[in-house]
Order: sequence, then structure tokens, then C-alpha cells
Amino acid sequence: MTMDKIVALCKRRGFIFPSSEIYGGIGSTYDYGHYGVLLKTNVKNEWWRAMLSEREDVVALDSAILQHPRVWEASGHVGGFSDPMVDCKTCGQRFRADHLDQLTCPQKPSKHPGEAEQCELTEAREFNLMFETNVGPVKDTASVAYLRPETAQGIFINFKNVLQFSRKKPPFGIAQVGKSFRNEITPGNFVFRTREFEQMEMEFFVPPAEGAQWYEYWKAERGRWYEELGLRPDHLQLREHDPDELSHYSSGTADVEYLFPIGWSELEGIANRTDFDLKAHAEHSGEKLEYFDQPTGERYVPHVIEPAAGADRATLAFLVDAYDEEEVEGEQRTVLKLHPRLAPVKVAVLPLVRKDGQPELAREVFEAVKGRVQAEYDEGGSIGKRYRRQDEIGTPFCVTIDHQSLEDRTVTLRDRDSLAQERVAIGALADEVAKRVAAPWRSPKLG
Amino acid sequence: MTMDKIVALCKRRGFIFPSSEIYGGIGSTYDYGHYGVLLKTNVKNEWWRAMLSEREDVVALDSAILQHPRVWEASGHVGGFSDPMVDCKTCGQRFRADHLDQLTCPQKPSKHPGEAEQCELTEAREFNLMFETNVGPVKDTASVAYLRPETAQGIFINFKNVLQFSRKKPPFGIAQVGKSFRNEITPGNFVFRTREFEQMEMEFFVPPAEGAQWYEYWKAERGRWYEELGLRPDHLQLREHDPDELSHYSSGTADVEYLFPIGWSELEGIANRTDFDLKAHAEHSGEKLEYFDQPTGERYVPHVIEPAAGADRATLAFLVDAYDEEEVEGEQRTVLKLHPRLAPVKVAVLPLVRKDGQPELAREVFEAVKGRVQAEYDEGGSIGKRYRRQDEIGTPFCVTIDHQSLEDRTVTLRDRDSLAQERVAIGALADEVAKRVAAPWRSPKLG
Repeated sequence: MTMDKIVALCKRRGFIFPSSEIYGGIGSTYDYGHYGVLLKTNVKNEWWRAMLSEREDVVALDSAILQHPRVWEASGHVGGFSDPMVDCKTCGQRFRADHLDQLTCPQKPSKHPGEAEQCELTEAREFNLMFETNVGPVKDTASVAYLRPETAQGIFINFKNVLQFSRKKPPFGIAQVGKSFRNEITPGNFVFRTREFEQMEMEFFVPPAEGAQWYEYWKAERGRWYEELGLRPDHLQLREHDPDELSHYSSGTADVEYLFPIGWSELEGIANRTDFDLKAHAEHSGEKLEYFDQPTGERYVPHVIEPAAGADRATLAFLVDAYDEEEVEGEQRTVLKLHPRLAPVKVAVLPLVRKDGQPELAREVFEAVKGRVQAEYDEGGSIGKRYRRQDEIGTPFCVTIDHQSLEDRTVTLRDRDSLAQERVAIGALADEVAKRVAAPWRSPKLG
Repeated sequence: MTMDKIVALCKRRGFIFPSSEIYGGIGSTYDYGHYGVLLKTNVKNEWWRAMLSEREDVVALDSAILQHPRVWEASGHVGGFSDPMVDCKTCGQRFRADHLDQLTCPQKPSKHPGEAEQCELTEAREFNLMFETNVGPVKDTASVAYLRPETAQGIFINFKNVLQFSRKKPPFGIAQVGKSFRNEITPGNFVFRTREFEQMEMEFFVPPAEGAQWYEYWKAERGRWYEELGLRPDHLQLREHDPDELSHYSSGTADVEYLFPIGWSELEGIANRTDFDLKAHAEHSGEKLEYFDQPTGERYVPHVIEPAAGADRATLAFLVDAYDEEEVEGEQRTVLKLHPRLAPVKVAVLPLVRKDGQPELAREVFEAVKGRVQAEYDEGGSIGKRYRRQDEIGTPFCVTIDHQSLEDRTVTLRDRDSLAQERVAIGALADEVAKRVAAPWRSPKLG
């Protein structure tokens, strides 16, 4: 399996494609088309379901992208969220100082890559990865604001507010889904690393003594989430950071990694951030960011466990894991064996032929199911071609209306993975499809 | 009803509150708390349901916020999306030239507002309302990019892509929900006008001769959407723009207006944008943006009808419309009479007392309903106080577990608006609540 095949399928079926294409594109930025929007929305909904609706100890938040610039001073992003960069004195271009082996000066191209001595370089300077803009009518240092590089800080600065509104006490979490922006010098690998991306982050506030135990809990919980949604366990691993990899604020960090075509790469980070963030914002803002327990009179700054996932990365992993090519009925098919809950379309309704009253009955069937699950009606082309199309977008169930349907009001229900076909009464179809979509599921790739 | 009361409720219950508050806030920017996220998500889901899931002629798109800068040259935003501004030579502040009557120089305050002659002003200059940033490591004119001021252009530039992937033919639409940014000089009125806001836009592409007819169709359709979700018809109006109000690209625009506490104000604009946008992008990009109808051999640039709604504005309108204060059982209550589909929480499960096995049974009931609808469990405080709390966040149904529940496994189901209480068997409760949430609904304020 190669990334190229995923990229080609995403483009061909309109899942994901380069942004601003008619103007030559804008580097490493992508737009989501119809099926891509439906798929990614399902990924986010499953995250909300697991992190919020099925729990009682987590509340939702949606903080602004443009926040007060002091947020990023307190968080350390203004001071330290940077890469060292050098300028080439010949071509004037800027390169990452820690990636000089990949450097090529377009005016003095090296015969052998890595011959950096052909290009005279400036001293390395730190280049901040936050996008900068100005708020209000005057462009000066007082009006500078940043596009948030992570959603997490929006949670920390609202800790006190949420404590008041929600009547929660630690352990409890605040969850948020939203766009973040990083002016990456080397974005790439399709939607794995882009300058504009969507995060699904949760900060879980706990009594200081319970940090280690909740860190273990969330590592297990987040690994299970990906498995339950179908990622093959042998393509998933939890990698604990070495002590020298740890951020200065963290007493422990682990990555949920997936075996992408580019190798094992981070899907999600789970970090024990201790009391670093709340203390930093308390110091910079002068507000007390702590929990006071009335019954015991105890007062403390909670520790924080953060499972931080990427919605685009998760979507890519589900696509990669689901992708398959196989021979079916003597024909090659490309199929996305997506978990039915993630699949963009749950059921396609297909009249076998475009006559004999079949389209009319098929439309009746379509009207009956479309209120229950995302459905598609398709009468164009041979039935085999229509199956292939639904296979490629990962539709778990196809309903075919044939001559028998007009006699006994039953239809065939085809399973994407087993290819089994069963006859189901039209009156029972919507319930049956909804039931199958909601049922526990196991990737057919596991055999 | 005043805006202040809405703002106070939103803050008190954690729906919406000023952003970056611990750092003194950042003008006219707001964060959504738990109930605010749930409410706004429901608003967006209802939009997707009406615009996408219940139709067959609309597909979804999610284009990037950072687009190629030439997009905004073609759209006219670089050249014309601006307000005239003047600088005060005394205080150095910048003011809108068309709002000089509201001008106050802090160093030379007027005795009478509007005495602008106290402040010596520069000539008016155009100030572009797009937020500017730089992409990549070098800050120069070649790296300038804008935060999109509307989601619409992301749709137009993808017209050709979507046509290919979706196999649609006009009339068909492309729908998108996402954040946009405008560096407004005078934001205000809570979330009515903010610099960062969320749009729900759809571009509906039609054969040129059908423009007028689809314009009428979408005006009616969008008005109905707000009514069906509970806005009182006498607080809603459709206002056709006068010819001199029309944008240069539009042959007809109407606003769905709502009677906010600040007066009749725009909720949504429905515009007949003709072929202006596709032609502009075709000219600037050199790509043909047209539809070729194979069977007839016809080739044309579609006309576009655009219903453009604001998710924050719609959320505010639903809050304002639902807000009520009334006397109930000798007590004053504040209640949000929200449509059950919009309500952040559908059902609250409340044991009458915190003993006699009631909390245990209540938790069993809670576990049974929470997978079906957004539910809350609450055992803290008197039952009257807990009802008031649920009334304030607009929960349409409260389930109370009392002594009889332990005998016959029935509970009382309380209706937020009529206050009627019925006994329902625990086994039937989840279905009953789900059924009531999905049922057609009429605002109790209509009598």
C-alpha cells in the first residue's frame, strides 16, 4: 500500500484534494469534498461520543481562534515555539538549520545533495511557527495577534469559568474540537502535516496525586478508541517518549502511532502536563487557577492529562487502514472497508434496471431510509459499476430493487465486505440498516 | 426583553462568554461553553439536515481558511472589501470616516458627541477588512495570505472539481459550514457581529434561465427553516433589498431578518449572484468554469443562488426567541423554550431524594437514555431548584424518580413548557423521549 494510491482515490472520489487548485494551489493545503466532509464529520462525532456523550465527567468548549496575545506568552509559544532558520546569501531563500542536508540553492544547485558549502549561509535565527496577524484598524506591535497553534490553551484559560458553570470537581475534563494553524517549514505527506489542521483535544484535570493513574487510564482508553473504530491492532502501537524527548512541562508523554505508508507516525499524543499550564496562566494573568474543595477545605492546582488527537490524521489513518484491492466475481475492485459508523454513506439504493417500475419502487425505498441514515440513490450505469463505485467510497450496504421486489416487496441487502446478499422486507429495511450500522464491528482484514 | 438578559444568562449558565477573560478579554470575541457548544452544534446539524441529508441535489464541501491570495483578487475582496478610515492627528487613533458622528478623541474629548472639529483628521483612506498573514518562512508581499472573509469563494473555486466528482448537473448546490474572519472596525451586540464567526453557506448552481425561479424558491425555503425550528413568525420577516442596496454582482438579494432586541437585523442573506463569481474566477485563473450538457450539447456558465446564514447569529436568535420569564408554582422562573431538537440537553434524570434507593434507580434510567439522546444526571439540591436549572438551559424533558418508581418501575416525565407530568414505564422511556424530541413542535409562545 502506498500513499499515492490513497491520494489518487481521495482525488478521484472527491474525498480530499489540493486547495485553490485553479490558482496553482497553495502548498500543503487541502479541501475536503462531499465524502471527505461526511467521513471526517463521522470521525469527529465518534470522538465526541466517546469523550463527551457517553461520559459524565467531560464538558465541551469551543474557544476562539484569535485569542489575547498574552495567552501565547504564558504558554511559552511566543518565546519558544520556533525552528532555527538560516538564509542563503546567494538565492535569499530560508532553510531549516537542522535540515541542512536537504538544502538546495536554486541558483547554485549542488551536484551532490548535501553539499551545503556551495551556498553561503547566515547565522541561524529562531523562526516562530505561529501565524501572525493584526486585529483592529492599526497595524503595530500593540495590535499583533496569533492564529492559535493548538486548541489546548483555550481550555486552560477557561478553567475557572468552566469550574463555575459546570459544577464539576476534579477529576473532570474539558473537550474541544477546532482548527489550529502552524506555519510549518516542511509540511507534507498529504494531510498528515498541514499548516491548517483540525484538532480534537481534551484536558483532564485531576488531583495532583492522581496524575500517574489517569495518565495510564487515558493511554489505554485512546488506544481502544482507534481499535474499536476498526484500525488493525498490529498497525497500532503506543510509544512512550524517552526522557530526553519529553517537553519541559511533561512528566510523561506517549504517542499512539499508526503504521502509515510513511512508516510508524504519531496519530495522537497523550501527555501528563502536570500543573505547568495552569500555573503559567495564573502567574501571567494574576488569576487564581486552582480548585477549592469546600467539604475538605483542600485547595490545589490540578494536574492535567491531555489526549490530543488530529482529526485530519485520524481520517487519513482510517482511510489507509480501510483501503483494499481484491478480486471479486472475476473483476478487480478497490474497496474502503471502513467501520459502518465512519462510512460517509451507510446505504445505497439501486434499482437493478431503469424500467419496469423498479426506479419508482427504489425511490420509495430511498425516501424511507434517508431520514434514518445517510443514503444515496443511484440508477446510472450497470449494477456492477454502481457496486464498484459504492465499494470505493466505503458504503457498507447496498440495497437492490429487482423484479421480485415488485412482486413481494422485498429487496436484496448486500454486505460490502462479505458480499453476502439477503432478502429483506421493504417495511423492515430502515430498522435493519440502522441496526447493522450501530452493531459492534470487526475489520474483515483481521480475517 | 433586553440583550443584557440574554448575555447574563449565557454567562451564568456557560453558553457563551467573553474570550481570553483572564487576560482582560480581546474585543468582541467569545468562547462557547458546554451548553453553547451543544446548542450551536444542533443548529449546524439542523442546517446540514435540511440542506444536505434530506435532499439529493446538494453536496458538502470543507475548503481551507488559508486560500491562494489570487482568490481574493478575483472575488474583488482585495480591491473593494474595505471601509474608509481617518486618523486623528491628536491621539493617533483611527476612526471610520462614515461614522464621524460617533468619534471621540480620548485626548480632546468633545463636550457634545459629534463635535468632530476638536480633533484634526487625516484624509480618509480605504482600510481592508481582511486579516492578513504570511505563509512560509519569509515575510514579504509574495508570502501574504488572507484569512477568508467568507466561505463562499472556497465553493466557487471548487466548482469544476465538484462537478467532476459528484456527477451532478445544475440545478445543484454545494454546502459548507466553517469559520470566517473580518477585521470589523465596529463589532458588537454580543455574538451578532464578531471578528471571528461561523458561516453556513450554500451556492446553488442553476441554468441561467432558472435564476429568478430558484431565487424565489430559496427565499421561501430558508424562511421556513427558521419557523420550523421555532422562531415566531411575527418576529421574522423577509426584506427585499432596494435596487440601490444591491451588490454589484447581484440581480436580487433579500434578508431574512429577525426582531432582535437591537431591532430588525439580518439573520441570513439570500442572493441571486448571477454568473458573476464563476466568470470572475474563470477570467483570473484561466480555467473554464462552465457546465457542458452532453445530451443537448449545451454549454453555459451557471447562475448562482446563495443562501448565506450565520451560525452564531442563528444561535443568538434561537436564544432570544426562546427566552421567557414567568411565574410557575408561585415562583419566578427563567426558561428557554427551545425547540427540543435544538435544546442542548434533551432529558435530565433526577431522583426526588438522595436516599431510599432512588439515586441507584435513577442512574439505571440515566444509563438507558444517554445512548439515545443527550442526557444529564443531577441529584444535587431540591427538586424545584433542579427543575429551574434545567428550565434555564432549555431541557425539554425532566424525568423524576420517586418512591412509586421503586414499586412499579414508572417515572414522571415533566414537560418544560406545559409543566404536565405523566407517568411512563422505565422500559418505554428512552423510546418515548426520542419520539417526543423528533416530533413536530410549535413554540408555546404562540399560545
